[in-house]
Amino acid sequence: MTVRQMSLPELAHACARLGIPGAGLWREPVRAYGVYAAAGLMRDMGLTVTSLCRGGFLTAADTAGRSRALDDNRAALDEAAALGTDTLVLVSGGLPPGSRDLAGARERVADALAELVPHARAAGVRLAIEPLHPMYAADRCVVSTLAQALDIAERFPPDRVGVVVDTYHVWWDEQASTQVARAGAAGRIHAFQLADWTTPLPHGVLNGRGQLGDGCVDLRHWRRTVDAAGYRGPIEVELFNEGLWGRDGAEVLAETAARFTEHVAGP
Amino acid sequence: MTVRQMSLPELAHACARLGIPGAGLWREPVRAYGVYAAAGLMRDMGLTVTSLCRGGFLTAADTAGRSRALDDNRAALDEAAALGTDTLVLVSGGLPPGSRDLAGARERVADALAELVPHARAAGVRLAIEPLHPMYAADRCVVSTLAQALDIAERFPPDRVGVVVDTYHVWWDEQASTQVARAGAAGRIHAFQLADWTTPLPHGVLNGRGQLGDGCVDLRHWRRTVDAAGYRGPIEVELFNEGLWGRDGAEVLAETAARFTEHVAGP
Repeated sequence: MTVRQMSLPELAHACARLGIPGAGLWREPVRAYGVYAAAGLMRDMGLTVTSLCRGGFLTAADTAGRSRALDDNRAALDEAAALGTDTLVLVSGGLPPGSRDLAGARERVADALAELVPHARAAGVRLAIEPLHPMYAADRCVVSTLAQALDIAERFPPDRVGVVVDTYHVWWDEQASTQVARAGAAGRIHAFQLADWTTPLPHGVLNGRGQLGDGCVDLRHWRRTVDAAGYRGPIEVELFNEGLWGRDGAEVLAETAARFTEHVAGP
Repeated sequence: MTVRQMSLPELAHACARLGIPGAGLWREPVRAYGVYAAAGLMRDMGLTVTSLCRGGFLTAADTAGRSRALDDNRAALDEAAALGTDTLVLVSGGLPPGSRDLAGARERVADALAELVPHARAAGVRLAIEPLHPMYAADRCVVSTLAQALDIAERFPPDRVGVVVDTYHVWWDEQASTQVARAGAAGRIHAFQLADWTTPLPHGVLNGRGQLGDGCVDLRHWRRTVDAAGYRGPIEVELFNEGLWGRDGAEVLAETAARFTEHVAGP
């Protein structure tokens, strides 16, 4: 998504050229290209699919909406398996229209996970709950902190349900370091994503994630914290940023790789 | 600030007409009108000044910036005393340019409060730390939760340093109800403010606070929670909202009073 302006083949070739060993993919471009074709492309280029984004949106209070969401998540799990990734990232969903019941919506997320876990087991894919920044609590994700995500995840086995640590969403939270340790000790860090925090936030607050090093997040501190929690998986850079999307994708990818070296890698 | 389009006399007369018993004032219009003139106006109209907004911005890391901030807060305490309010609302301030050290900035807020408490005692005014929504952590307020605000406040006597509970900032936080109880038990709820949460958020996320009832905050639940914590002080409605500012102030004030009755007052 950082370089959504690139086609999947362009992305795969650019990653291979830059020595980037894998990429997290999103469902829409994968489905447009063909799931098996995308899997073959990545494999042929020697790239891993680090995760699939995204399932979730599990907060519907009505039976039909809930049933549609579960079906869609089962399809997403199958797509993840076909791509050869073991991780489906979940954005839980916001409040249903007119609702003021955050706690109830969170409970529906947990209920839905209970229904999805058998399918996830069969597919060999992990459900990774991503807490989103509290500014998205109303309309996008009622799970706002790592503590909340873990409270839900811990109802299930760690090889089936875990969490995503994304610096953009957790950097402000003084409890997040402790929660990363809690998640790591239980083997529940299923993905680690990076973005920097820059201001002012854009209208709608979706597409203002900062290029690594442009903002106020101590990215290397977070990488070390996740390291210390025992995480050895891939590190993804996920920037929704209109400015980056308006530039040449290969150039943005190369810049991002350089920023990673400068602000994330190393001691 | 909800009706910043009104002059202080217009505000005072409209409040008196609507049976609104007091108003929280902001420093800029008060200073423009004259602090003692404003105090006299409110007194003559039978209105209380519920609080003065705002002091704070205490995160500067350099000596000169810190000294200026302390001087400004001492002046604000004196203005509050002159207005006859016992509460100065503090917005702590964001990260200094280039800094990535949230914890250090929070500690500087606590250090500054230690320097301000004697002046607050002499003025008979309480310093009320307002936690702001985490989306403001970088550029406006490094204190993001009631728990953090109370951790700082509890270093000082409750009649000198407490917290502001503002629904706009805390509604998403599942720990906030517990923290309201913690604050109430210690006599540290110094102000209670209402705004609703509506989406999409505007560019810069400052001026999109929702009119009571327009969003997803269960305002009556929060009022009951604050009641149950023993709070008996004024309830302020603080809406930064471009739409409301563009309308007739008296009409907005009447609408707000009606919304208060509908969504906040009563059992």
